[in-house]
Amino acid sequence: MKNQQWRLASRPFGEPTKDNWTFTEEALPALTGNQLKVKVKFISLDPAMRGWMNDGKSYIEPVQLGDVMRAGAVGEVIESTAEGFNVGDHVYGSFGVQSHAVVDAAGIHKVDPSLAPLPRYLGVLGMPGMTAYFGLLNTGLPKAGETVVVSGAAGAVGTVVGQIAKIKGCRVVGIAGGKEKCDYLTDELGFDAAVDYKADDLKKALKAACPSGIDVYFDNVGGDILDTVLTQINFKARIVICGAISQYNNTSAVKGPSNYLSLLVNRARMEGIVVLDNIKNYGHAAREMASWIGEGKLKAKEHVVKGLDTFPDTLMMLFKGENFGKLVIEVEHES
Amino acid sequence: MKNQQWRLASRPFGEPTKDNWTFTEEALPALTGNQLKVKVKFISLDPAMRGWMNDGKSYIEPVQLGDVMRAGAVGEVIESTAEGFNVGDHVYGSFGVQSHAVVDAAGIHKVDPSLAPLPRYLGVLGMPGMTAYFGLLNTGLPKAGETVVVSGAAGAVGTVVGQIAKIKGCRVVGIAGGKEKCDYLTDELGFDAAVDYKADDLKKALKAACPSGIDVYFDNVGGDILDTVLTQINFKARIVICGAISQYNNTSAVKGPSNYLSLLVNRARMEGIVVLDNIKNYGHAAREMASWIGEGKLKAKEHVVKGLDTFPDTLMMLFKGENFGKLVIEVEHES
Repeated sequence: MKNQQWRLASRPFGEPTKDNWTFTEEALPALTGNQLKVKVKFISLDPAMRGWMNDGKSYIEPVQLGDVMRAGAVGEVIESTAEGFNVGDHVYGSFGVQSHAVVDAAGIHKVDPSLAPLPRYLGVLGMPGMTAYFGLLNTGLPKAGETVVVSGAAGAVGTVVGQIAKIKGCRVVGIAGGKEKCDYLTDELGFDAAVDYKADDLKKALKAACPSGIDVYFDNVGGDILDTVLTQINFKARIVICGAISQYNNTSAVKGPSNYLSLLVNRARMEGIVVLDNIKNYGHAAREMASWIGEGKLKAKEHVVKGLDTFPDTLMMLFKGENFGKLVIEVEHES
Repeated sequence: MKNQQWRLASRPFGEPTKDNWTFTEEALPALTGNQLKVKVKFISLDPAMRGWMNDGKSYIEPVQLGDVMRAGAVGEVIESTAEGFNVGDHVYGSFGVQSHAVVDAAGIHKVDPSLAPLPRYLGVLGMPGMTAYFGLLNTGLPKAGETVVVSGAAGAVGTVVGQIAKIKGCRVVGIAGGKEKCDYLTDELGFDAAVDYKADDLKKALKAACPSGIDVYFDNVGGDILDTVLTQINFKARIVICGAISQYNNTSAVKGPSNYLSLLVNRARMEGIVVLDNIKNYGHAAREMASWIGEGKLKAKEHVVKGLDTFPDTLMMLFKGENFGKLVIEVEHES
């Protein structure tokens, strides 16, 4: 059995290109003790991957040149020397961008395909869902009646942020690109308003959507959108810095928020989050999110692209704003 | 008796010039009920004044064209129709940039020149001291053993921030311009290190001064210094945005902090403060600061320039970094 893999060949300057990747095939090693052989079925594609491709200190080690690209994924156990894991179990782990993985059982957890489709464990029930849950509730601190704005609102994190804010009784405004996404936010997910940053005059549209100003801003994009939001925040507003996808492929310096002195004028706060800090509380969050899903209060959307071979192009969909919901690759296996 | 006044004639674009001011002389009005006539003795000059000269929404109303420039000041009561105030009392209030003031007694409080020299009530015992006290303690949240960095360190706020951080058991590093100021911080005020942003390679010097990284940064200056500090902050660092004097006279957009994503990497926080929010607790703070002064733990430095006529030039000393300690104008009276 051959394992197919995407490895980091070189570090990108600006946008990643196909040249940054090597496609390899190799035999799978034999298991040693307490290991699993996993047939990878769905691979999570996340904006954070762009950061992992860079060298230098960050919240997590960079992927080393020549290594299989890091990725969260779900798959099926096809061989096990680990207690508690049997062939046929479905599991989540950092399996990487490859068709199969041989991994230590530590850090792997089971998922149940009868409770939710497998890609959902990479979205609302996975890292993006946890990011939204902890980032919004612990750092955004939304109160009923407040106005919550989220950018990248039709993405894996944004859809969950907005829906949790609705559950908490907030006015929720999403910023997304394109009418289809904006309609989805208001018509399907119950957002109070959506702003199309590609079509609308952002400043005016945001003002119209947030007549009482902005109390919480959950930022996935950075750049001009962050700067515009800063002009409309309220006294003691909280800005959650989750990401800055508009800036990840910059070839010059990141655009800092020129309007950051609005923090001073409004005694507001801007704070960064990383989901991994909450790992001890994932269980509690997952149970609460599952109950919201059961009650129909939290809807999930996945964007599935078939074929491991598509990885270099599929990844770029994130930076072009072409995904609509949680982006995953489905690995197609012959058997 | 003629009252001499500096009034805002026009709003500056970039650096204030003499053309933005009009010098006027007028008779003082007669007192009505519950008022004071004050001979103004010392006038506080603060970076915040630059903001008050601009039109537009901020944390306080702009000074209107034609109005006497707003300023905190101390003076002597020379006539009173207000209960509890007698001729000869010394008082603090927002008297403005003028030689005399006729004001309602509400909001005016007495100061005691036998306890401290009058200019000190505009510095460590006044707004800058309160700004340092509440900004550092309530927002910076310094813990013993942590590293606290303050910019504008030889100024009215910075000197107090650093000394309070020392009292709280922190390693304290000041950023200031020039050897004389830096020597003063380490030799007179007990800072652990000082970085001369005019002479040193800021990044290297800061790294050498902060071998364990930066836990709290109290920012008075913004611009490149804020951006450099952001590259050296620790996990869960707190950045207090008190001001951005390097940016106040910009004719183009404020330079936003390009390295703000360090907040994400380090799960750090950037928060704005305005001293006025703490007005109910000024009394407690003033008593604690007075006791530190009494114990010799908190030293004060005022930079007194004589002559109301110097106001337009003296104000500019703030933006050129020419003041050394709290900048005040002493109004010279014939009697």
